[in-house]
Amino acid sequence: MTTSFHPPVRTLMGPGPSDVSPRVLAAMSRPTIGHLDPEFIRMMDEIKAMLKALFKTDNELTMPVSAPGSAGMEACFVNLVEPGDKVIVCQNGVFGGRMKENIERFGGEAIHIQDEWGKPVDVEKVKAAFAEHDNIKALAFVHAETSTGVRSDAKTLCALAHENGALAIVDAVTSLGGIEVDVDGWEIDAIYSGTQKCLSCPPGISPVSFSQKAVEAVQKRKTPVPSWFLDKNLVMGYWGGSGKRAYHHTAPVNSLYALHEALVLVEEEGLENAWARHKKLHLALRAGLEAMGIEFLVAEEDRLPQLNSVVIPEGVDDAAVRTALLKNYNLEIGAGLGALAGKVWRIGLMGSACTERNVLLCLDALENTLIGMNAPIKVGVAAQAALEVING
Amino acid sequence: MTTSFHPPVRTLMGPGPSDVSPRVLAAMSRPTIGHLDPEFIRMMDEIKAMLKALFKTDNELTMPVSAPGSAGMEACFVNLVEPGDKVIVCQNGVFGGRMKENIERFGGEAIHIQDEWGKPVDVEKVKAAFAEHDNIKALAFVHAETSTGVRSDAKTLCALAHENGALAIVDAVTSLGGIEVDVDGWEIDAIYSGTQKCLSCPPGISPVSFSQKAVEAVQKRKTPVPSWFLDKNLVMGYWGGSGKRAYHHTAPVNSLYALHEALVLVEEEGLENAWARHKKLHLALRAGLEAMGIEFLVAEEDRLPQLNSVVIPEGVDDAAVRTALLKNYNLEIGAGLGALAGKVWRIGLMGSACTERNVLLCLDALENTLIGMNAPIKVGVAAQAALEVING
Repeated sequence: MTTSFHPPVRTLMGPGPSDVSPRVLAAMSRPTIGHLDPEFIRMMDEIKAMLKALFKTDNELTMPVSAPGSAGMEACFVNLVEPGDKVIVCQNGVFGGRMKENIERFGGEAIHIQDEWGKPVDVEKVKAAFAEHDNIKALAFVHAETSTGVRSDAKTLCALAHENGALAIVDAVTSLGGIEVDVDGWEIDAIYSGTQKCLSCPPGISPVSFSQKAVEAVQKRKTPVPSWFLDKNLVMGYWGGSGKRAYHHTAPVNSLYALHEALVLVEEEGLENAWARHKKLHLALRAGLEAMGIEFLVAEEDRLPQLNSVVIPEGVDDAAVRTALLKNYNLEIGAGLGALAGKVWRIGLMGSACTERNVLLCLDALENTLIGMNAPIKVGVAAQAALEVING
Repeated sequence: MTTSFHPPVRTLMGPGPSDVSPRVLAAMSRPTIGHLDPEFIRMMDEIKAMLKALFKTDNELTMPVSAPGSAGMEACFVNLVEPGDKVIVCQNGVFGGRMKENIERFGGEAIHIQDEWGKPVDVEKVKAAFAEHDNIKALAFVHAETSTGVRSDAKTLCALAHENGALAIVDAVTSLGGIEVDVDGWEIDAIYSGTQKCLSCPPGISPVSFSQKAVEAVQKRKTPVPSWFLDKNLVMGYWGGSGKRAYHHTAPVNSLYALHEALVLVEEEGLENAWARHKKLHLALRAGLEAMGIEFLVAEEDRLPQLNSVVIPEGVDDAAVRTALLKNYNLEIGAGLGALAGKVWRIGLMGSACTERNVLLCLDALENTLIGMNAPIKVGVAAQAALEVING
């Protein structure tokens, strides 16, 4: 007989999922009601309103896709890319590569710009690509690369897309809620995110938003969208407007309770206060890590506060450290992905996991673990350095 | 300021979601851990083993898709249908039509067999279609039509597919856990279900299983699968084998806790006991409804115990009754869909909602509501008729 599963209580400081607030977990376990229940529909309207505020947009097509961030990415590309469409796609980590795969699977032509992992998207290369190619349908890039901890200049890249008559498609999986994202201000045409990063919800839902121009591009398609589940023309019968809802698919009711509560938490804190908290505690973590002698992968001006990629000290066994942190401290930090596997750790400070307590826990746990492995670090200085920042 | 959402406590006797057990809700709210955490991976292995038992299959590719049943449907068709493939698709309700849409969106040629809504798929028509057309890649049909409450003869239809060298693709969204589904015995090649029907989990996850023949068909494709998120070649890096897992997408951790607990509940009760419970309480509900003078849409031999479609008595206002049930009894029953809108109610007895208490609640609530509307029903006999069946 299989027995009930009781997970260990971890502290989640990897690249996501991040620690989920007890309030969000409690919301998730409230009794399930129907996906067409008038009370549920009222809650959907509140989710839409709060998502618009979070994305800083008036876009009517703003809604949570009923599946994880990868499906949110797919929702953008499957609706906007038709066979033969040319899309400039910037890759500076794992997720730009996934965007390219999406474009090609839907018959698009990906004009692929490669940047070094750990560096932001190079605006000059994008300019050159626009100069070289005609009839570009869209420019796609990752705002906050989860695989490297790098922020790219979304505002400038979106402006460049519009100067060239292209749509701007933006991955904000790791940025939303942690740093500024301004959909209307930057005129982003299609954006997707995830719930399990700076919103500190359990994974499984992907908030998306499409501008009016993007909606028109979907409506003007010559071929049907090669997905029934993600076709925005259909989904908007359920999520569009407000009040009246037509059945499309069965919404993940309890996961949306959780998202609702997470959005209430953002509203209570204030979006700008949340950004400031991420920034301050990133500086505290950084002070501690640097005092210990651990270096960042990413140049200071391009770092994401919510995802700190640090170089694994020479001679230290990556997996052994992460296993020890998990076993001794119930602390999860992230491994490197792809080209950075074994070379970096990714330390998340996302949403509810972005706390003073967690900064200090992570520094102490890492220090003690590295001491146990005779790693060349400075001892007894990290926590003090972090506390100096915390206490201002 | 938006306030936290506190749903009303409903009794869910519609076509799904169904009532969720407090044990499943409690599991869902346990602390989130990482999707690559060794403890999580151990739980994934248990889910796979329990899903195999539930589907009655040894299929290695048996796993939960991280999205609702409609995405499970799409996972089957997007992997198995290539441009130009001919697929016979049987429609006797809403969901056969959705299958047809899937086939066509992926460039397949749908050979469409229409049956009357409320009748099972006509085996003779399928035979005729196989006689008329060559090179049929697959036969697709719905085992338990959620829009009408009809069971089709899955075993015979699968045999017919195999005699003609075609794959059998089966929708088991409403059947799994409520009536017999025998993937290996019937040689089903691709099957998908949902969590929110007879498994009584919150909606959002779709268990699927592919036979070895189906896996080979995916591997032999000439064109890439037009979905990154649902490409089985990729997903199996995360869900395939056991033990070692490669990152594909971030799994919906807490929704999988819920599924795990729901599967433990099925194991504890015993799958055949669960089928017997659905059958017995269906007969009790039917005795009560018929005593009241309410008729079933579907012929006795084709009825699903877990979804009872009954004809709305002449002169009765469909929406007014459902609104009164919700308001006065917190009871949800389902409206008719598509061609049956306004003509039938769909009364679910699914999973944790399939209880003696709910049979009696539904009969009393419906009787009192119809009395209040001067509907032509027999009064004071329904509960007695149901109790006779319950008490055997």
